[in-house]
Amino acid sequence: MPQDYRVPHLTTALTGPLLELEEHLLNHSHAIEAWFRQEFRDTPAPFYASVDLRNAGYKLAPVDTNLFPAGFNNLHPDLRPLAVQAAQHAITQACPVTDGVLIIPENHTRNSFYLENLYTLKEIIESAGYEVRIGSINPEITEAQIIDLPSANRLVLEPLARESNRVGVAGFFPCAVLLNNDLSAGRPAILEGIEQVLMPPLDLGWSSRYKTHHFQHYATVAKRLAELVDIDPWLITPESVQCGEVDFKNPASLERLATKVNEVLAKTGDYYHEHDIDCKPFVIVKSDSGTYGMAIMSVQSADDILKLNRKQRNKMSFAKEGLAVDKMLVQEGVYTFETVDNAVAEPVVYMIHNHVIGGFYRIHTGKTATDNLNSPGMHFEPMSFQQSGVLPDQSQGPDAEPNRFYAYGVIARLALLAAAYEIKYSKTAKPD
Amino acid sequence: MPQDYRVPHLTTALTGPLLELEEHLLNHSHAIEAWFRQEFRDTPAPFYASVDLRNAGYKLAPVDTNLFPAGFNNLHPDLRPLAVQAAQHAITQACPVTDGVLIIPENHTRNSFYLENLYTLKEIIESAGYEVRIGSINPEITEAQIIDLPSANRLVLEPLARESNRVGVAGFFPCAVLLNNDLSAGRPAILEGIEQVLMPPLDLGWSSRYKTHHFQHYATVAKRLAELVDIDPWLITPESVQCGEVDFKNPASLERLATKVNEVLAKTGDYYHEHDIDCKPFVIVKSDSGTYGMAIMSVQSADDILKLNRKQRNKMSFAKEGLAVDKMLVQEGVYTFETVDNAVAEPVVYMIHNHVIGGFYRIHTGKTATDNLNSPGMHFEPMSFQQSGVLPDQSQGPDAEPNRFYAYGVIARLALLAAAYEIKYSKTAKPD
Repeated sequence: MPQDYRVPHLTTALTGPLLELEEHLLNHSHAIEAWFRQEFRDTPAPFYASVDLRNAGYKLAPVDTNLFPAGFNNLHPDLRPLAVQAAQHAITQACPVTDGVLIIPENHTRNSFYLENLYTLKEIIESAGYEVRIGSINPEITEAQIIDLPSANRLVLEPLARESNRVGVAGFFPCAVLLNNDLSAGRPAILEGIEQVLMPPLDLGWSSRYKTHHFQHYATVAKRLAELVDIDPWLITPESVQCGEVDFKNPASLERLATKVNEVLAKTGDYYHEHDIDCKPFVIVKSDSGTYGMAIMSVQSADDILKLNRKQRNKMSFAKEGLAVDKMLVQEGVYTFETVDNAVAEPVVYMIHNHVIGGFYRIHTGKTATDNLNSPGMHFEPMSFQQSGVLPDQSQGPDAEPNRFYAYGVIARLALLAAAYEIKYSKTAKPD
Repeated sequence: MPQDYRVPHLTTALTGPLLELEEHLLNHSHAIEAWFRQEFRDTPAPFYASVDLRNAGYKLAPVDTNLFPAGFNNLHPDLRPLAVQAAQHAITQACPVTDGVLIIPENHTRNSFYLENLYTLKEIIESAGYEVRIGSINPEITEAQIIDLPSANRLVLEPLARESNRVGVAGFFPCAVLLNNDLSAGRPAILEGIEQVLMPPLDLGWSSRYKTHHFQHYATVAKRLAELVDIDPWLITPESVQCGEVDFKNPASLERLATKVNEVLAKTGDYYHEHDIDCKPFVIVKSDSGTYGMAIMSVQSADDILKLNRKQRNKMSFAKEGLAVDKMLVQEGVYTFETVDNAVAEPVVYMIHNHVIGGFYRIHTGKTATDNLNSPGMHFEPMSFQQSGVLPDQSQGPDAEPNRFYAYGVIARLALLAAAYEIKYSKTAKPD
């Protein structure tokens, strides 16, 4: 690669180890790219995704894969052309003849962060050469609503309508429909059985999807990548155990959860001990479906579970939009050792189609390395990646920024591939 | 678009007018992108192209469209991911199943600028997830030859072999074959009738292609774009007239050429006069086939043709690789009013698939606004575009860098579309 970098680049948050893993990925980048290309040819990627990573230095792993990403407005504008190009190809693949895309957003009409994201997403798809309109399933939207954004841009939300087997807004019922609503509130009847191409499919909404399935697929593809690059799959895989239904108000149910927590702690502790990793194992307990970090906690022992107070138990019983939590996922906690200005930082990587199109650091000054950073009331400071994460620079060391971002892009795409398998099997399970 | 540009950007060379045209393109960018997307859906773009533009302030037009671009090493490395993504889609479209790409290069084995380009091209395609090897038709290459490049990278050239209806190098006969040789020396027999996908097709080599055909197609698509954005097509179209065969040693033949020159000068002069453009018309006379700027001259009157001395006539009689010049193209000269550090600058835009992937300024201190900058012995200073030219920024004025580059990208893609029509009609003419 040319050495002629004329612009200054941000340094990555972490300047510590992860060397061995990054070096492996760098040395095998051509093989990795060929493998991804072939995998996504057989198992097409979802339209988009964002993946939260944790970088412990000795381990780099995904902890959350969002198939309805918001936050596109946090990506660095210099990388926008990558998103535009990828969107054109994703839409062409899904629906070659369409000239329009209908976006179905979340129901937040007063969250200006979300609406700025929606505006950016609309702009990306318009720049790719499509007409875009926004059809809301929010029952409060009964006529076209014009929203002036803090960025001085303007967004129009229209009520979603159904005409026989198609959904749309007044006079606009295109072949391609893009969901930017994670369906935490359930599968909307208006979207059932439509003949248009829904991206991603209804089955991938949180009302139907389980994180444990995602991490099962992830473990499978991570194992195959690990074989390809000759590393221990543990280095890129978070131990994830489905706990089944947990009733936080029932002591017997909590006992069962505590047992699972102990299992994961013990397994992680054994690995740490065997490999001289001087860290205390911890575990993340979170809802197996849903997002937004409502029902999530970080625990270092089974006692943390058994000694939950009433308030904590209540918190764990309700996830986003008031859904009762049913199943829980017990996941190995991965430390995040990246910091920016002494604050803990977690990389978030964005993808459209099978391409990394940018990312940012979620930074929180009040949190520690074991905390979940996507927690309620969190005011993160997005720090855009200046580079795309697409290309390693073989002429620099593994810790150089393009190389660290390359490693992030590899692990994020591995989670994307796991999501592609989720779609594949959801379709196989329910052919229609 | 977010206003948060954290990096400094080069200013464009020109800070003069072109405002009206740029404004038109900016105001219609969504319609333009939709139009290009639909056009390239019906008429697929060649694998790649570079387009030389001239920016006169009152006019922005292509003057040369190269379907076998070199100079990939001059593009800014920050834009590399765009090239990688575009290459993956171009190859997928041409040959969905292939895992390898064979590149057939120019025969220059001692031109390190060319070889660095070849290395960069190889790297782009490898980063897209393909195995790449280089098969040379240079008869001097009889066995694998390892070349150490100034960049400290290493290139292996292997002799091209044919096995029944496929070409390749030892053990490597992939479905996709990429020509980076413009075939000025003729159609190589080894490439005739191969069953692999040759990108671009053999008919697009300079041995079969005429610039006048390109500019006829260009005039057609430019007219349609001009209608879409409601501008005078003259603003983006260079008047181009085929002169037929010219024998520079035959006075009668020179007379005929001088007449054509006068026609174009008069037509351009009329337009200048009518629109109060205070410039002296000039004309470029160049070979209708071939490249490398050997047989090319800039003239301001028919007398310049009639008074050619013997040396000048000899120069015009031979183009690249010693081919006798047959047909000539007489083209309206477009001033280049862009300067960098007081030197004349000409933008060159690179595309892969239907995507702009970067560009640079060709800068020459010893030339004037009417000269051809791609001339023998030219030592241009490439100045990479820092931005992609893909995205306009509606929040800035039409002269802001992203907007000027957007205009460049539009006109360059218009020339790309003209090349796509050349391919379409070459195939129609010779179905096989």
